[in-house]
Amino acid sequence: MFFEGSEKKVEILVHQNQLSLLNDLSDDFWSELVNRCNAQILSSISNDKCKAFLLSESSLFVWDDYFLILTCGETNLVNSVKYFIEELGVNTIKHLTYQRKNEYFSHAQPSCFGDDVKQLAKYIPGRAMRFGAMDSHHTFVFHQDNQFKACIDDKTYEFFAYQISQDASNHLTKPGLTAHDIRTFLKLDELIPDFQLDDFVFEPYGYSVNAIYDNKYLTVHVTPQSDSSYVSFESNINLIELIPIILQILEPASFDLLSYNETEFKTLTNKNVPNRYVSQSLIQQTLTNGFLVNFANYILPTQGFSSATELDISGDNHEL
Amino acid sequence: MFFEGSEKKVEILVHQNQLSLLNDLSDDFWSELVNRCNAQILSSISNDKCKAFLLSESSLFVWDDYFLILTCGETNLVNSVKYFIEELGVNTIKHLTYQRKNEYFSHAQPSCFGDDVKQLAKYIPGRAMRFGAMDSHHTFVFHQDNQFKACIDDKTYEFFAYQISQDASNHLTKPGLTAHDIRTFLKLDELIPDFQLDDFVFEPYGYSVNAIYDNKYLTVHVTPQSDSSYVSFESNINLIELIPIILQILEPASFDLLSYNETEFKTLTNKNVPNRYVSQSLIQQTLTNGFLVNFANYILPTQGFSSATELDISGDNHEL
Repeated sequence: MFFEGSEKKVEILVHQNQLSLLNDLSDDFWSELVNRCNAQILSSISNDKCKAFLLSESSLFVWDDYFLILTCGETNLVNSVKYFIEELGVNTIKHLTYQRKNEYFSHAQPSCFGDDVKQLAKYIPGRAMRFGAMDSHHTFVFHQDNQFKACIDDKTYEFFAYQISQDASNHLTKPGLTAHDIRTFLKLDELIPDFQLDDFVFEPYGYSVNAIYDNKYLTVHVTPQSDSSYVSFESNINLIELIPIILQILEPASFDLLSYNETEFKTLTNKNVPNRYVSQSLIQQTLTNGFLVNFANYILPTQGFSSATELDISGDNHEL
Repeated sequence: MFFEGSEKKVEILVHQNQLSLLNDLSDDFWSELVNRCNAQILSSISNDKCKAFLLSESSLFVWDDYFLILTCGETNLVNSVKYFIEELGVNTIKHLTYQRKNEYFSHAQPSCFGDDVKQLAKYIPGRAMRFGAMDSHHTFVFHQDNQFKACIDDKTYEFFAYQISQDASNHLTKPGLTAHDIRTFLKLDELIPDFQLDDFVFEPYGYSVNAIYDNKYLTVHVTPQSDSSYVSFESNINLIELIPIILQILEPASFDLLSYNETEFKTLTNKNVPNRYVSQSLIQQTLTNGFLVNFANYILPTQGFSSATELDISGDNHEL
């Protein structure tokens, strides 16, 4: 069964003198915001700096002056933005970034990136870029075009793994797997010691975890099924330095890296990406909002033949 | 402007004692068959063995006992198959193969491969396979599952080039370009000397050519626009041997090869694919109809950074 793991993502910064997202808004507000894109809140954790909601489709993180929502599957994330604007007014927004990864079952989506941007641009003038070629992994970024300038210390990292090893897929699709089993398999205590965790094991498989420590966050979403596996990591801790451990666990046939404001991208990837991977795309762009964005897609070249994938053409098979 | 060059393709073999496709069916029949998928016949050429129709969206080739139709854009090729069955009966069909490449603007398509196969399977029991990973270039193949066994001499080849060089794209999008200019640029007299040609230059750009010689055919379809360029070749002459010339002309960042019944696939690709390309997918599968199918996707690894692609978000821009 195919599941569209590819995420859409919105980050909204607010004017701090107007509103504290953490203190002035109730859980009901966030619950409704999440419902609007056709997802639900499953659970939450929090500390002084941040509140993290685990969703039926990915995650929502709220800090005092900004929030970040990622949704996968067939969600319509722009509807959540519209709700935010309806409730709080467009002038509350200091800066908005909307991001959407290329999908593999895009005809099942309620909208395409073009539709989304047309909706957003009614409220927020902005610019749109594509990172990566049309015919390979790529990510669309729309950002508000206003006076806002990003602080160079505002760094975030995304890592997307595709076609994880058969061993990893077998392990992560075992019936009866517990959250603890998956935490251990993903070596979360090595990757993020001291982080507070909140996770969920989906039926028949799939796993999501939110992790926070002070103002730091990591979220991991696992679509483990063989043939269309996908594991995404997003964090404001340096994921490029964690690549060797992540690759050892998942052994993906391909992975993408996306970073905001990592000025040492080339040095870090040279150091941490093993030579057996080659880069298909390598993009660097400074946006008009000041963000330095890097995108890279790596693949593992193959020498030997493998078989074609037989598809089940009976019933409502989503693999087709 | 984005154009979906990715093709759908149907090959139907008929029982020879029942019908000569070449002699017993009028051009009006083929014209209606083409109209049914939402394309039109532009022109045709023929010889004793074969008739080749150039279409508004790709090509149709008719031989005595089989025909082959390729369509790109937003066509619904299954409707053409339905017309054939309505007019001539399903028992006329000795064997059917339906093939569909992964698309890059699939939410604009009238159907997905799964929809198509569900329609076809109402008339023709069959099996479906995917060649290539979901997250990279791939081609779906549906074939009738009956007593038919392919003859090993029935060889066909497909070559798909992506992201042709800026020089090639600039040349092929020059205003006022003639068919003769493009024939020369594509070195058709070197690739296929002695073939009879029929070609068309589309506005504002795009080029299609059908070429026949005895029972041999080649068809080339060019979507030249920078950023989403795509050039497809399909033939029953050995395209793998022509790779060095084709790569010299187009210098694509990536290309796919698909062959039916090429038993020397590995030897031929080792000889003809330059070392600077690495293979991302390499698939070999013998179908239950006896066809040996090989699929390979090659990419050119990149070292230096390039810029992101700015997208025009005004109006009905199809790039989004």
